[in-house]
Amino acid sequence: MPEYPEPMARLIDSLRRLPGIGSKSAQRIAFHLLKADREETERLAGALRDLKTDIRLCEVCNNFTDVSPCAYCTDASRDARLVCVVEEPANIVPIEKTGKYRGRYHVLHGTLSPLAGIGPDQLRIGNLLARIPGNGGTGTPGMDDSGDASADPGIEEVIVATNPNVEGEATALYLSRLLKPLGVRVSRIAMGIPVGGELEYTDSATVAKAMEGRKEL
Amino acid sequence: MPEYPEPMARLIDSLRRLPGIGSKSAQRIAFHLLKADREETERLAGALRDLKTDIRLCEVCNNFTDVSPCAYCTDASRDARLVCVVEEPANIVPIEKTGKYRGRYHVLHGTLSPLAGIGPDQLRIGNLLARIPGNGGTGTPGMDDSGDASADPGIEEVIVATNPNVEGEATALYLSRLLKPLGVRVSRIAMGIPVGGELEYTDSATVAKAMEGRKEL
Repeated sequence: MPEYPEPMARLIDSLRRLPGIGSKSAQRIAFHLLKADREETERLAGALRDLKTDIRLCEVCNNFTDVSPCAYCTDASRDARLVCVVEEPANIVPIEKTGKYRGRYHVLHGTLSPLAGIGPDQLRIGNLLARIPGNGGTGTPGMDDSGDASADPGIEEVIVATNPNVEGEATALYLSRLLKPLGVRVSRIAMGIPVGGELEYTDSATVAKAMEGRKEL
Repeated sequence: MPEYPEPMARLIDSLRRLPGIGSKSAQRIAFHLLKADREETERLAGALRDLKTDIRLCEVCNNFTDVSPCAYCTDASRDARLVCVVEEPANIVPIEKTGKYRGRYHVLHGTLSPLAGIGPDQLRIGNLLARIPGNGGTGTPGMDDSGDASADPGIEEVIVATNPNVEGEATALYLSRLLKPLGVRVSRIAMGIPVGGELEYTDSATVAKAMEGRKEL
């Protein structure tokens, strides 16, 4: 005898494919939804369908957005001279949460990974280059017609915020070699011991980076 | 500036209402679905909608089912003389997983809880009583027309498998007082130390139950 009636088994199977959801969680959610009112289920189903219809990539920075160019790219209060390069759209969230960064973004949608067959052509580097002044781009494409050149002065510094692992480092190096000849400053986020962390429990690679990246007091 | 475009924020909000899913998991799932192909999202949305349309309560045992009476109630290979009473449909799963139980089920959809205002009338006890022979029921309702009386001989024992907490105990006691006068045996699942557990780390109430429920070797 099947463990669950078919419509329930189908939902549990679909839920189980989501990241961080195992069989137990999927079952729990399915039972929860059966007890919940129809409205909650409808809202979730609707939100799922709308997601794929209404969200696309920003033509400028490749971030997920419902309007292109996205809110970051069109926000005049952000510093257009600064661009932070991240691997995935999800990486923008923690940077925004700091409240310290007021520049713009560029999403690569991946990192260089020769073993996985991911080379520069698989990353969204082309429209990053197009954003560099004097390289086909004058500031933010699509913003050129504003006539207000001072609001969009063109990129001066690219901060590479790919993850501090082999692929992220390789990608950072590749980007710096590509961008520096175009006359932009390329920087890399700092590696070191996390705030609140303890030396005793930190791996030696991180400690080495922390020593290497020491700052004068 | 909003953290996410509106369609994404809406999905994250809907996901966060599910049990066991916090903000972080909801974000992670939303980003996963954005990267996944449309088919996966459609399948999930479809499964959600079908759930509420196709699943209802079994008229006999109140379990979630797509056909009523449900597969447990109509399975002739199961022992109709034995009924296991559980709080929620989800509680059937662990009992079935043991592979040791071959009787039928009855789902109360709750437990007695005077503080929460849940009395006997809020539980699905009525159609349990109707299943007791000589009490309006002759075995399983809806199965009477089969003419095969031996296949459905009527309930002889009710195993109360509500959870071993105050509400579950109170419900078990209530059911035993209700059912015993009708001439059925009422039993309660054993409480004790879990298999693989250790005395040292077991609370004293459980140890007391384990001592109390000891069996001769």
